[in-house]
Amino acid sequence: MTRRLTKSAKDSNPTELNNIFLPVSRQLQSVEELLKTWSGESSPVLKKMAKEVISNQGKLIRPGVLLLIARHLGYRGNNDITVAAAIEAIHVASLIHDDIIDGSDIRRGNKTASKSFGADFSLLLGDFFFIRSIHNIMSLKDRNLSEMITQVAQQMVEGEIEELAQSYNFSLSQAQYMKIIEKKTASLFLTSCRLACRLGKASRKEQAALEKYGLNLGLVFQIIDDLIDLVGSPLETGKSGFSDLKEGRITLPVILALKQTGPEAASQLESLLRKTKKGSEKENFSILLNILKKTGALDLTVLQAENLAAKAREAVMVLKPSPYRESLLDLVDFVIFRKG
Amino acid sequence: MTRRLTKSAKDSNPTELNNIFLPVSRQLQSVEELLKTWSGESSPVLKKMAKEVISNQGKLIRPGVLLLIARHLGYRGNNDITVAAAIEAIHVASLIHDDIIDGSDIRRGNKTASKSFGADFSLLLGDFFFIRSIHNIMSLKDRNLSEMITQVAQQMVEGEIEELAQSYNFSLSQAQYMKIIEKKTASLFLTSCRLACRLGKASRKEQAALEKYGLNLGLVFQIIDDLIDLVGSPLETGKSGFSDLKEGRITLPVILALKQTGPEAASQLESLLRKTKKGSEKENFSILLNILKKTGALDLTVLQAENLAAKAREAVMVLKPSPYRESLLDLVDFVIFRKG
Repeated sequence: MTRRLTKSAKDSNPTELNNIFLPVSRQLQSVEELLKTWSGESSPVLKKMAKEVISNQGKLIRPGVLLLIARHLGYRGNNDITVAAAIEAIHVASLIHDDIIDGSDIRRGNKTASKSFGADFSLLLGDFFFIRSIHNIMSLKDRNLSEMITQVAQQMVEGEIEELAQSYNFSLSQAQYMKIIEKKTASLFLTSCRLACRLGKASRKEQAALEKYGLNLGLVFQIIDDLIDLVGSPLETGKSGFSDLKEGRITLPVILALKQTGPEAASQLESLLRKTKKGSEKENFSILLNILKKTGALDLTVLQAENLAAKAREAVMVLKPSPYRESLLDLVDFVIFRKG
Repeated sequence: MTRRLTKSAKDSNPTELNNIFLPVSRQLQSVEELLKTWSGESSPVLKKMAKEVISNQGKLIRPGVLLLIARHLGYRGNNDITVAAAIEAIHVASLIHDDIIDGSDIRRGNKTASKSFGADFSLLLGDFFFIRSIHNIMSLKDRNLSEMITQVAQQMVEGEIEELAQSYNFSLSQAQYMKIIEKKTASLFLTSCRLACRLGKASRKEQAALEKYGLNLGLVFQIIDDLIDLVGSPLETGKSGFSDLKEGRITLPVILALKQTGPEAASQLESLLRKTKKGSEKENFSILLNILKKTGALDLTVLQAENLAAKAREAVMVLKPSPYRESLLDLVDFVIFRKG
């Protein structure tokens, strides 16, 4: 397990992701271009902001998953580009609003929209991406697709609200944590798979396998994200460290540490966690990190992520072999071994 | 014109609005109940917040317009309730996000969502209402209705962004101001009319008349809203006064005052407006208000609103007589003579 924590950074560089998405690289480029067109239609200020956000954005993992699956299932039309762009727009909208809530200045080495344009503009920019996403998928005239997109957007917002409501709740159970990350993160991976199944007319068996894949990949993604917030260096991840702790967000390593340790150590941990609210005392964080390491909570977290990753791999193996299936398998490794 | 400014408050009390909406009072109640059901389905925190916001909300003017028109056109189904609720949910979403941007604590005598739950929760609550609105109208399985709702939500956000971008722009023209308020406010009135036309299968002539009505009513609504921010008392309006000036929002009275006055007085006005950013020096506001009065800008603003109101009335007169048409006419008076 310590393998994961010591794995060298080069194993998760963007080149690897480019390789994974090679079978759909042309389509992924179209997704990015399409997203830029959407923002180009609007008022000059909006256009400028939207372009910057799209350029600074992430790795297009969710659109990549959707495109790989659609192609694996034999889909050869162009609607997957629009649907993948809608998925990414929902993701971007949610990131923009998250960064306002967290007061984050940096994401993946770039300034957040909130830092670049101020909270007011970026609030509206997030609204724009939410609505634009739904509006565009409607143009495909398939009510099922539109419903999936609005439903997942709703779930994500509900998950975020639930998470915010549980801040500083030290008795948050693992089951509650899993439910929250399922809603706020895994649901969009799951929906990407479902949308692809609809486009590619998946059989029932394929659909069940791919839903299992999406859900578990999404859960792993968030668990590792939460772990990186504790152990990843800001340089590698582009994230300022310990942002979850600073916001009182109770993530899996903390839940497991509180469970592993005796009542006295638990109350020390809680009191440390409460203190992180106030300032950025570096010492507190290293004491905290030490407790998490000592209780084995970090290793246990990796173990849980690896169990879920195994489920995702197992699900994909039900599909017939194809280069797309290989990429879906590689993506599980990328998500679990990534450093940022 | 001073008539408007001195008209007694009792002329615009809620009883009057209840009378106007009497022909659709049963339906309006169903709209409110439906909105409460929507929020009741979600997580406990969300449910609590959404209920409070729905209870504290406004006068259901947009749903009222939609219902009056649908009934006037002979529509007798139940879908108008769902569509009216969707319109109100978009309005509520936009208010919640506006109040975060403006930092407003009070709206119509009640605490804003942002004041009650904090900016973080209310940001997500606004997202919820935007998405829920679109999700619910989709259940009616008429793509035209869903498209109109997403399109207007997009226009409103674009209008808000444009307005924010023009803060402290003292050379904002009246045409630019009108374009902004058309997008951010009048578009939802216009869309309420269009949705009703679709439900009630309006003739081309009826549709053209009702679109003219909705657009002009919406413009009047916003102009009077901006005027109330300057001359209305916070007690009557439930709004803290001068909030537009504090945010550097250049509204019609200011545009007209800058146009009426010589370069010297204009630069005095601009310097006063710039100062309002910093603190809440009461003296500045009364000097400002005096300039607005002296230049005739307030009276001119009322005149412009009355011209647009006349267009709205003229448009409605194209329809065949009915109690619904009477209410639409009365509503124009309510909107222009209201104090809050």
